Amino acid sequence: MLKLNIVCVGNLKDKFFIDACNEYKKRLSRFCELSVFELKEYTNLENEEQIRNAEGNDILKHLKGFVVLADVKGKQLSSEGLAEFLQKQTVLSSEITFVVGGSYGVSKSVKDKANFALSVSPMTFPHRLFRVMLLEQIYRAFTINNNIKYHK
Amino acid sequence: MLKLNIVCVGNLKDKFFIDACNEYKKRLSRFCELSVFELKEYTNLENEEQIRNAEGNDILKHLKGFVVLADVKGKQLSSEGLAEFLQKQTVLSSEITFVVGGSYGVSKSVKDKANFALSVSPMTFPHRLFRVMLLEQIYRAFTINNNIKYHK
Repeated sequence: MLKLNIVCVGNLKDKFFIDACNEYKKRLSRFCELSVFELKEYTNLENEEQIRNAEGNDILKHLKGFVVLADVKGKQLSSEGLAEFLQKQTVLSSEITFVVGGSYGVSKSVKDKANFALSVSPMTFPHRLFRVMLLEQIYRAFTINNNIKYHK
Repeated sequence: MLKLNIVCVGNLKDKFFIDACNEYKKRLSRFCELSVFELKEYTNLENEEQIRNAEGNDILKHLKGFVVLADVKGKQLSSEGLAEFLQKQTVLSSEITFVVGGSYGVSKSVKDKANFALSVSPMTFPHRLFRVMLLEQIYRAFTINNNIKYHK
């Protein structure tokens, strides 16, 4: 079974985001061995670059297998495109790691380590809501690849 | 104060989506007079076109002011782009209506009535989650236009 890791910075805080993520995590457990790593948010540092670097150092420790970085400037895919992409990658790799940065994005070292930069939207979303969106799209990709009806 | 309507098909069903929408609705009340119209989902009809047409007839009755249709094939904007777009529109119009279709999209007659088709993402999201995403982006646009720090 595919190992799928979501590495993200900060906790979800709001109950509605926690509950929504839990719902998609439960649904995803049918298709992959999912691990979500919530890393520390460095809110106490002086400037944004310091925050990105501190968070980046922690992210780097969790990058395993094929690494997909969520990046507003990355490559755009449709939901079907993501499904096809994941289908291909699971043939090549038994582990895929998605990275969702914190409020200030990710460090250059994380960008350099990523195998693919995926843009879900040209709009900037709060990273908490974004985590729900990403889990939903990964779940949707699995339903597409497994010919499972899914409409909501 | 700007009148802002969200016309959408179907209820939110899951508590986490209801709570998330309520949070953004509360935040938006600072900037506009927000009304959310939840229209009936016609799940009992025979085919997708019939559903789109039935839902479309109900949507048409709620289209007031400048109409923005959420459409995966519409024009993409960044969050800053949406902020600028709304800024300009509020000068021209005192009422803006956003339309979020149901599971099968909207009818041609709704598309024809829309003044602008906005694509939030090339990916397809469930309309319930999408409503949260749209409210968040509208809220974000207001914070950008009012120079309010907003990071999450």
